[in-house]
Amino acid sequence: MPNPEALAALTSLLGERLSTSKSDLDLHGRSETHFPPTPPQAVAYPETTGEVQALARICAASGLPMVGWGAGTSLEGHGLAVQGGVVVDFSRMNKVLALRPADMDVTVQPGVTREALNEELRATGLFFPVDPGANASLGGMAMTRASGTTAVRYGTMRDNVLGLEVVLADGRIIRTGTRARKSSAGYDLTGLMVGSEGTLGLVTELTLRLSGLPEATSAGICAFGDVDAAVNAVIETIQMGIPVARIEFACARTAEAFNAYAGLDLPAAPHLMLEFHGSSDSVAQDAARFGEIAADHGGGAFRWSAREEERRALWALRHNGYYAILASRPGTTALVTDICVPISQLAAAVNETAADIADSPVSGPILGHVGDGNFHAILLVDPARPAELEAAQALAHRMVERALRLGGTSTGEHGVGLGKLPYMEAEHGPAWQVMGALKRTLDPQNLMNPGKLVPAM
Amino acid sequence: MPNPEALAALTSLLGERLSTSKSDLDLHGRSETHFPPTPPQAVAYPETTGEVQALARICAASGLPMVGWGAGTSLEGHGLAVQGGVVVDFSRMNKVLALRPADMDVTVQPGVTREALNEELRATGLFFPVDPGANASLGGMAMTRASGTTAVRYGTMRDNVLGLEVVLADGRIIRTGTRARKSSAGYDLTGLMVGSEGTLGLVTELTLRLSGLPEATSAGICAFGDVDAAVNAVIETIQMGIPVARIEFACARTAEAFNAYAGLDLPAAPHLMLEFHGSSDSVAQDAARFGEIAADHGGGAFRWSAREEERRALWALRHNGYYAILASRPGTTALVTDICVPISQLAAAVNETAADIADSPVSGPILGHVGDGNFHAILLVDPARPAELEAAQALAHRMVERALRLGGTSTGEHGVGLGKLPYMEAEHGPAWQVMGALKRTLDPQNLMNPGKLVPAM
Repeated sequence: MPNPEALAALTSLLGERLSTSKSDLDLHGRSETHFPPTPPQAVAYPETTGEVQALARICAASGLPMVGWGAGTSLEGHGLAVQGGVVVDFSRMNKVLALRPADMDVTVQPGVTREALNEELRATGLFFPVDPGANASLGGMAMTRASGTTAVRYGTMRDNVLGLEVVLADGRIIRTGTRARKSSAGYDLTGLMVGSEGTLGLVTELTLRLSGLPEATSAGICAFGDVDAAVNAVIETIQMGIPVARIEFACARTAEAFNAYAGLDLPAAPHLMLEFHGSSDSVAQDAARFGEIAADHGGGAFRWSAREEERRALWALRHNGYYAILASRPGTTALVTDICVPISQLAAAVNETAADIADSPVSGPILGHVGDGNFHAILLVDPARPAELEAAQALAHRMVERALRLGGTSTGEHGVGLGKLPYMEAEHGPAWQVMGALKRTLDPQNLMNPGKLVPAM
Repeated sequence: MPNPEALAALTSLLGERLSTSKSDLDLHGRSETHFPPTPPQAVAYPETTGEVQALARICAASGLPMVGWGAGTSLEGHGLAVQGGVVVDFSRMNKVLALRPADMDVTVQPGVTREALNEELRATGLFFPVDPGANASLGGMAMTRASGTTAVRYGTMRDNVLGLEVVLADGRIIRTGTRARKSSAGYDLTGLMVGSEGTLGLVTELTLRLSGLPEATSAGICAFGDVDAAVNAVIETIQMGIPVARIEFACARTAEAFNAYAGLDLPAAPHLMLEFHGSSDSVAQDAARFGEIAADHGGGAFRWSAREEERRALWALRHNGYYAILASRPGTTALVTDICVPISQLAAAVNETAADIADSPVSGPILGHVGDGNFHAILLVDPARPAELEAAQALAHRMVERALRLGGTSTGEHGVGLGKLPYMEAEHGPAWQVMGALKRTLDPQNLMNPGKLVPAM
């Protein structure tokens, strides 16, 4: 596995930016979640597309795997070099290359994080809306087809990447897409690359669609008698065409965790948290219309506000949901699930999951992006009790089976990585072999993030 | 080229639904535009996915090309069997298979037309928003990544196809996507298939995203002093986040053609035609806000109405634009162009194109979907004067060069077909070879709509 000539050639190329220090290897061999550490042979810090191309050529010539690395915030072990090789850390490719306000687009290097981009956009009246919570890199977000709370309004990375520059496994550089808002000129290679998790190439540049900052925003929270009532209110809201910018679900256990974490007094009941973007008139109207729908479904009062500090407090609560839930059982770690189902099946999926968790030895509050039918159970596991991890894994397994049975997907937004690989055949059937064939076409030596996403080569 | 055994096997499979009558061959050898007639060897009318699979196996065994056919409304000769073979006409696969109002999705066979689908949806409060003008089949619309007037609000076929069933060249059946609204589970094969123009497989089923019919609609029209003023009003409207459902451009020549065709008295000036969807309050507010923007850019009065008959009259005008323009010079046929550029380049693209047309012997009114940066020049050609067709082709060629120079695409919505094939290398560079490699992987014998989209195999 060690390949001294290739590493020497990479050192010639990158100098000190090819690291084999133990701390660097350890740092890039860890994931955010429960996967075992897997240090790579080296970590490369390229600064230009040309360097990435030269790196790919060296790796291709000596059969060395290449694994892209953004901010390291993946939840499914995407960045782990499970077959060895070089982790390509894009943190030095963090420039905003071109900002075009009239076109509402921007070209960035892959290491720019979403928060850094939005900071850069502050004076323009524009923002990049995809918000997975973590301050992920935009390259990483593209590669996992990330989304989050705002996807119900602004779409996922699939909808917000206009074009890419990609270094292929053999060192070829391709550009996909144009800056036109739409095109019918051939296969959608941008769409093929988004969500490919670094298995088809290394992204060196992204052109992203931006959105106008809303003139006004309102946000609020509302309790419901049960999960079905909350979900039916969501369905009706979306069918009525009320343009929610966010519509998030939190189960009764999550509400209790919020209370303990933030000193609140929410009822121990399922909640919806909403946000509306528009003019000051329209966000007030939208909130009022939602309030009527909530009342029709037996919801409590819809407490909403257009005041910035109240809105921020609400979403801080939501974004801290993971930590609030972790704090609800000190000393535990979490196994985070990520199923997504057709919205008509959402109440069934949540109720069955909650009942399954209640019958198990672990606790698992549920929250999610219900406008899309996507939710997460945060399964809390005491690391000292292996039986709990086993029980959590069995619960997660049954959640995926449930999602597929209900017409959904094993992963709404976290990606395949290592955690969802065992479910690809069940989810895609013969189409999974087609994915493998496409991978072999673009990466016949299996050097781009090998061991992920496609059937074993 | 004739292959009697294969045709006999297809006749065994389909009986009278395998036609070799001259009228059928002629009908399926014609396109809507200027491409020379190319009758296939046979026309097949399958009724089930199983029949399409059996057909593909027969064709694969004997090397017979397969070319999908929807409603025959393509403008770029997509359905012409330029290398012979069987045209697969999906008109008998025209069932709505499953309608799920709670999920706002529907599963259809490829031969369902968009008007038939919307008729079927009438009682549900839902509609399928993609509107290319022609009453195209949904299979054909998916294959050309069609869009039209509403894409600025509702997206193109790329955004409105959730999943597909596809018969591959070797007869394998795959299903892409799920009914979940989003997924991060592997390569986006749905996106790869949408826009592939039948070169990767035959689509036998589509699951489509539906939208809620707006509670209220307003629409209107406004004249501007010049193209730049109109385009700047569009840019500001979109940047302000005013949720236009349609925002269409018509040049001064087009306005004159409208006047002659419909007995109107529009000024001979560039116009914008808009539509807003929402609540009765919001559509009035949106129209008022646009009116202010138009005034800021020196536009005339923005005449708008929420009354259904006035709205219908406006869009009938727009949808008849092609015929109004044809009627402006009786006896001519049209070469329809389709470039799309970043919106900041739109005024330049329109102005340069108009000047180029003015210097030529042909007339060419311009209209288009300016919210997306997409416009068409309708180049009017007297068939008796070959020099005019040559001049029109030279104009169309320069339009594509202009689009690519300005960061755009050779085709915003009509697709590659035969007409844009010569520009694929210039538009995509090395990425075009990648498209070819993907094609060879899924269709190594080059039987699926050969001679289209990818490099010659």
